[in-house]
Amino acid sequence: MDAVDKKIINLADKLQGAIVARRRDLHKYPETAWTEFRTASIVIKTLQQLGYDVQFGEAVIVESKMMGVPSEIILEDQMKRAISQGADPDLVKKMIGGKTGVVASYKFSKPGPVLGLRFDMDANDANETTEANHRPNKCGFASVNANAMHACGHDGHTSVGLAVAEILMQMKDELAGTVKLFFQPAEEGVRGAKAMVESGLADDIDYMLGAHFGFKANKTGQIACNVTGFLATSKFDAEFTGVPAHAGAAPEVGRNALLAAATAALNLHAISRHSDGTSRINVGVLNAGSGRNVIPANAILKLETRGATSTINEYMSKEAKRIIEAAAQMYEVKVKITEMGGAAGGNNTKNLADKITTVAQRLDIFNEIIPHSDFGASEDFSYFMERVQKNGGQAAYMMVGADLAAGHHDSYFDFDERSLGLAVKIIAGSAAELLLQK
Amino acid sequence: MDAVDKKIINLADKLQGAIVARRRDLHKYPETAWTEFRTASIVIKTLQQLGYDVQFGEAVIVESKMMGVPSEIILEDQMKRAISQGADPDLVKKMIGGKTGVVASYKFSKPGPVLGLRFDMDANDANETTEANHRPNKCGFASVNANAMHACGHDGHTSVGLAVAEILMQMKDELAGTVKLFFQPAEEGVRGAKAMVESGLADDIDYMLGAHFGFKANKTGQIACNVTGFLATSKFDAEFTGVPAHAGAAPEVGRNALLAAATAALNLHAISRHSDGTSRINVGVLNAGSGRNVIPANAILKLETRGATSTINEYMSKEAKRIIEAAAQMYEVKVKITEMGGAAGGNNTKNLADKITTVAQRLDIFNEIIPHSDFGASEDFSYFMERVQKNGGQAAYMMVGADLAAGHHDSYFDFDERSLGLAVKIIAGSAAELLLQK
Amino acid sequence: MDAVDKKIINLADKLQGAIVARRRDLHKYPETAWTEFRTASIVIKTLQQLGYDVQFGEAVIVESKMMGVPSEIILEDQMKRAISQGADPDLVKKMIGGKTGVVASYKFSKPGPVLGLRFDMDANDANETTEANHRPNKCGFASVNANAMHACGHDGHTSVGLAVAEILMQMKDELAGTVKLFFQPAEEGVRGAKAMVESGLADDIDYMLGAHFGFKANKTGQIACNVTGFLATSKFDAEFTGVPAHAGAAPEVGRNALLAAATAALNLHAISRHSDGTSRINVGVLNAGSGRNVIPANAILKLETRGATSTINEYMSKEAKRIIEAAAQMYEVKVKITEMGGAAGGNNTKNLADKITTVAQRLDIFNEIIPHSDFGASEDFSYFMERVQKNGGQAAYMMVGADLAAGHHDSYFDFDERSLGLAVKIIAGSAAELLLQK
Amino acid sequence: MDAVDKKIINLADKLQGAIVARRRDLHKYPETAWTEFRTASIVIKTLQQLGYDVQFGEAVIVESKMMGVPSEIILEDQMKRAISQGADPDLVKKMIGGKTGVVASYKFSKPGPVLGLRFDMDANDANETTEANHRPNKCGFASVNANAMHACGHDGHTSVGLAVAEILMQMKDELAGTVKLFFQPAEEGVRGAKAMVESGLADDIDYMLGAHFGFKANKTGQIACNVTGFLATSKFDAEFTGVPAHAGAAPEVGRNALLAAATAALNLHAISRHSDGTSRINVGVLNAGSGRNVIPANAILKLETRGATSTINEYMSKEAKRIIEAAAQMYEVKVKITEMGGAAGGNNTKNLADKITTVAQRLDIFNEIIPHSDFGASEDFSYFMERVQKNGGQAAYMMVGADLAAGHHDSYFDFDERSLGLAVKIIAGSAAELLLQK
Repeated sequence: MDAVDKKIINLADKLQGAIVARRRDLHKYPETAWTEFRTASIVIKTLQQLGYDVQFGEAVIVESKMMGVPSEIILEDQMKRAISQGADPDLVKKMIGGKTGVVASYKFSKPGPVLGLRFDMDANDANETTEANHRPNKCGFASVNANAMHACGHDGHTSVGLAVAEILMQMKDELAGTVKLFFQPAEEGVRGAKAMVESGLADDIDYMLGAHFGFKANKTGQIACNVTGFLATSKFDAEFTGVPAHAGAAPEVGRNALLAAATAALNLHAISRHSDGTSRINVGVLNAGSGRNVIPANAILKLETRGATSTINEYMSKEAKRIIEAAAQMYEVKVKITEMGGAAGGNNTKNLADKITTVAQRLDIFNEIIPHSDFGASEDFSYFMERVQKNGGQAAYMMVGADLAAGHHDSYFDFDERSLGLAVKIIAGSAAELLLQK
Repeated sequence: MDAVDKKIINLADKLQGAIVARRRDLHKYPETAWTEFRTASIVIKTLQQLGYDVQFGEAVIVESKMMGVPSEIILEDQMKRAISQGADPDLVKKMIGGKTGVVASYKFSKPGPVLGLRFDMDANDANETTEANHRPNKCGFASVNANAMHACGHDGHTSVGLAVAEILMQMKDELAGTVKLFFQPAEEGVRGAKAMVESGLADDIDYMLGAHFGFKANKTGQIACNVTGFLATSKFDAEFTGVPAHAGAAPEVGRNALLAAATAALNLHAISRHSDGTSRINVGVLNAGSGRNVIPANAILKLETRGATSTINEYMSKEAKRIIEAAAQMYEVKVKITEMGGAAGGNNTKNLADKITTVAQRLDIFNEIIPHSDFGASEDFSYFMERVQKNGGQAAYMMVGADLAAGHHDSYFDFDERSLGLAVKIIAGSAAELLLQK
Repeated sequence: MDAVDKKIINLADKLQGAIVARRRDLHKYPETAWTEFRTASIVIKTLQQLGYDVQFGEAVIVESKMMGVPSEIILEDQMKRAISQGADPDLVKKMIGGKTGVVASYKFSKPGPVLGLRFDMDANDANETTEANHRPNKCGFASVNANAMHACGHDGHTSVGLAVAEILMQMKDELAGTVKLFFQPAEEGVRGAKAMVESGLADDIDYMLGAHFGFKANKTGQIACNVTGFLATSKFDAEFTGVPAHAGAAPEVGRNALLAAATAALNLHAISRHSDGTSRINVGVLNAGSGRNVIPANAILKLETRGATSTINEYMSKEAKRIIEAAAQMYEVKVKITEMGGAAGGNNTKNLADKITTVAQRLDIFNEIIPHSDFGASEDFSYFMERVQKNGGQAAYMMVGADLAAGHHDSYFDFDERSLGLAVKIIAGSAAELLLQK
Repeated sequence: MDAVDKKIINLADKLQGAIVARRRDLHKYPETAWTEFRTASIVIKTLQQLGYDVQFGEAVIVESKMMGVPSEIILEDQMKRAISQGADPDLVKKMIGGKTGVVASYKFSKPGPVLGLRFDMDANDANETTEANHRPNKCGFASVNANAMHACGHDGHTSVGLAVAEILMQMKDELAGTVKLFFQPAEEGVRGAKAMVESGLADDIDYMLGAHFGFKANKTGQIACNVTGFLATSKFDAEFTGVPAHAGAAPEVGRNALLAAATAALNLHAISRHSDGTSRINVGVLNAGSGRNVIPANAILKLETRGATSTINEYMSKEAKRIIEAAAQMYEVKVKITEMGGAAGGNNTKNLADKITTVAQRLDIFNEIIPHSDFGASEDFSYFMERVQKNGGQAAYMMVGADLAAGHHDSYFDFDERSLGLAVKIIAGSAAELLLQK
């Protein structure tokens, strides 16, 4: 451990109370994808006070790339709700349409590389348990918002991000280059990253870091820096519209949306495996028809494709779209395909992963450094990773261990708050490693 | 027109006000399939007061043959609701489990044939329009029960049945043989007739009559006596239960109920046509799956088969069941098939139809006697028809014309109440024709 | 029986030996669809000698409407084969491309209606049994042509046609109007009638007659004149062409023609029933793929649709084509749909059927006149029937009973040659009834 | 290069002429799977003369594990053919039923490990080109057997095996332990190894070696020793038998084998991916039905499954069988599933691969040692590999480079015969490395 490491540990330890308090405040007022008006409002104000150059709203979110956005009515209701829970009305107004992303940057006095850090802010569509022993209930910070709960730890991610921002600012005289903090909405359903990346704000980044609590590292004190196997994914809804008819009296007059959807589902699952690596397809939901004796005039499929690489996933999603359209044509029904989410495939840059591993070892705060972790799932941090790597930069995603009360997305989810400090230390430590004046 | 015809017309005309009042009362308190506690309670009391021998509850409904029965909780709620709306608590108690059928019989002093009359009592699962101009709203007899509305005229059928019962009793000295009145629950979804017929109470019937308002005869003053082409039908629900799994991390662990249901749906529609006549198959509803990224562990199909004859329908339903079970086996999921309704196929007995036509002509109250009507749909009166015809008896179903405010099952449905009297006259007239002392 | 009837019976009886001889000659040299070069050559010469105005080749066959034509190589081989078996080389040359239809007409001196008679000439794709007791073997007239056998009695039809032609010519002074004799190729697979009808040569016909031996009347001495229920039909081949690939090494590179064909087959059978009457669909053949470990790059479906009316069949075939094309699109393979045959739906004109019945009764040569026969299959005589009826004319098809050695299309098929004379008598008798000078 | 290496190179060089001659003789008389009577006869005699203890027939082939065996008639014909081409009639008789495997072993005087070597003998179902420039034609050793051609180099493999056997015998005083030579029939279609392995003769093996010419190493002078990614595979035929019926007249009477096969094909391709690694499914052939207007009563599917491991392939083939059986049940047809071939999955034992690499380097006869080769296909050597590895032994498969005239299984296939000597040297060299007295 060198002097810088020690300084970071000290700074983080001093902030621990504030970090926990902030996490609990965010936990109490969870906001689901594209409705993070209060959370973003707090993030903006905090970062402005710290001295960052803060952008948000349409400057950081490309509207046409937003996926799975709630209806306008819901967004309006949520804006009111956020204001009633303390969000700044002027800021909320500028985030109209759900553009709740925030990008804060600071250029240090000395030239150097550009470092990007990404933190996700959204909560899950879930209701928190009312069981008395659940700590958020015991300690009074359980969700007060219906159908919203931080069951994936993004309250912690946001809180950690603000603490890291504070520490880096306190160390600004020792650092070179630029730091860019991306507070991302709508990670759940992998809906938000694309709209931020497409803003171009990540195009100049040399090093990109992200992190998650408790996933594939479910004990406090663990850390995994060498993460590979992000599955690229696309999420679609396909809505079929046919023509109803009485199934006894005039079946030939109907146009059967249910059979179009059923034949689509079957043939979607028959998409050929890809010889370059892992692929996946899942039609998770099929709802069709209204009455037993009516030719079904409507059907919806909710599906997703995945691939070990973006190329494989593109193969899968291209096949999927053609099959869905052909199924509609087969039954002479209309179909509307809507992109509901997506993530890229990829792997941590080995070099950067090794650097962080060195920092983790040097900090000497982790019990176990997991040598390699196969992600095997999807996270839209991968869009940042892909963009940065394409531009010649390096990217890495860390798994910060945390004891969990229950699995992710469970109504009993909670995590060991000691991991908040550990996350702040490894992220700030890595940032210092990369930006320290030489 | 002879003296008996005149007498019937006079008696019916005197009752017209009471018939309308009864119809409006029933319309205000509609009761859906197997919950006709209040209606049956009124029917029982009225018929007992008229001097009939009245049976109901388990004496007339074979529990194991009841189809599409609501859950116990719903039935209990409905029993309370019925009592709160005036049903006799003691009678309701005896109809526990939804056994809301009533059979009233009277043996005239002279020997003669047994005549059966069937009237259906249940309402639709629908909400009546609140539009001010809708007559039930204007005249204050719109449905007060949520999700229940008499949108098929069974309120009228019941009211007509009670009036016919009264007239026949007033003519008892002129009649011979026996009359049996079947007040049937659960005609909607063709769920109730089978359980009544299986009681054996229709086994001694020589002549069986039934009637419907406004179907294939949608002008007041029309009548069709020569009805053929009842489609036999079976209604099923098939519930598939598989095993959920994460679609990215371990898809092979799941057992996919959605694909089982989809492949069942497709192959059900591919059941071969039958060379003996019309057949039909419809999967009207398919709902499967819970989340986009979860292998779907549950699915439900709601389907129906039909056939020009019971034999063709049995072919269709046997094929259907085998296909559904094989689809479950194909995806190694469990399936539960539940019979939700059914009707037989058949045609009016020509001879009896001709007799009624003669009565209709003689009464001279109809503008138009439709010479032949192809039913082309399903009605569970056919179970009575089939049983009576098998035993060597004759059966006929009449279409009594009525001007309609909107189509059957529409939230704006209403019919011309003049047709109530016309129905009473033709049914009582036909009864007299068949039972008059020679 | 009147004088004309007697005359016809006498003339036919005198010809019986020649009719049988001709039938046996044709039986020995059977010619399958579109290769009836020798048969047509005999028909042309015979009719010319009788004094008819004879047209053939492209004058009577519209090339673009010929369905299921053999390849050019096969046609050339067959032309050589026919010449080697006695066909006139000059005539054969004029029938190039398989245009083997013949239309002979004669205008009687007195004006009157136009009568059309149709006889089909082609043999089946079958090999005649070599069993010694089979009469064609015993009597030395079994097929000498490989893969060709008169197993449907068209040898008899042609022989009957020529005899009728001779009798009518012998009665020319008693007749009025015009007679047109259509000797049609390619009835098997319902491939030939359309190309003759489209020539327009049947457009002026007032009465159209056709006949078949032993179908639905399988005893010598029976006749059925009142035939209904011709099923309209369309025959298609669909050839799918994809891209092969190694199923282990690079499956995603292939384009799977087998799965396109399989999904087409399944969804074709799921085409909705039609409420206006009988419909049918059958994929009778599916052949796909080359090797177990190769993504199948080719597939062929052989299918047919049917309908109680031409409209229903058009609904079926339109649905079928769209489904096939969508299945190809679904698997990104090419598909070529070829019309291989077709027939119209329809019924005998009641009036004309009644007239023939009268003739049959008067001739007093039949043991049993079957009052009504439901055809329930397809025959392309229906194209003549449809065209004539559309133009206001009348058409009828007779079933002439015949004892059979085995069913139609069986390698043991043979029929009682006494029925040849009976057929000549009823056809010539009906012609006389319609054309006799008043 | 040490002394032993030199000795082996010298011995092999002396044999080169004989090796080529033997290869050409075998090439001229190719024998397909389970009919290698002449080849085995030559192998047996040669090895006996060399002093090996030779077993064959039912001692080395477990009948119940033979897959894809020709019919008895074909086998008998082939036995006669083999004898007519010089096979020893007594030996052929003992190989009745196609049991054409040979196992030769020799126990050296000193104790030591057991080394297994496997060589495959069968030819392909193919016809050799008659093109004059094709070397086998130019040099007079082209196939004289119809539908049989050595288009995969197994003629070379057998010839190499016999030369290795000769060299090892000449070095017997320097070697310890035991050598076992497996001359395997029916590698094409992966049909033969299982029946040999199940004999138990490979159960005591410590080191197992196999080799192939020109696959993934298509230049003379290349070699790959570190081979991984053998795909486990299962080959099936599924024959469906239904009931035919006239598609127009009585379709409901038929039992449709075509639709059973089509729905099986579709659902087979929808078997879920496996999260443990690569899987494959291919229905390569589907042939069904006889005539367009007949409900298809028969259908055959030829399919294969694959998996990165035997476990994954077992998952695939278990799923496949259940789906096929359920499809038969769905259409009420019978199905018979026949195992037509199979191979295990697996990888070379790293340790043994490294040893051979060392030998290859030391011999100094290869231009290029390919460091790693991903097999990505199936070879039933894997059954030997799996068995030996399960028993704690080591196994490796080598790719011996060879210039090719055309790809494997092509009618123009031929390979550079210099590679024969190279193969003999690396195999004998590796054997010496493993068995040399210490």
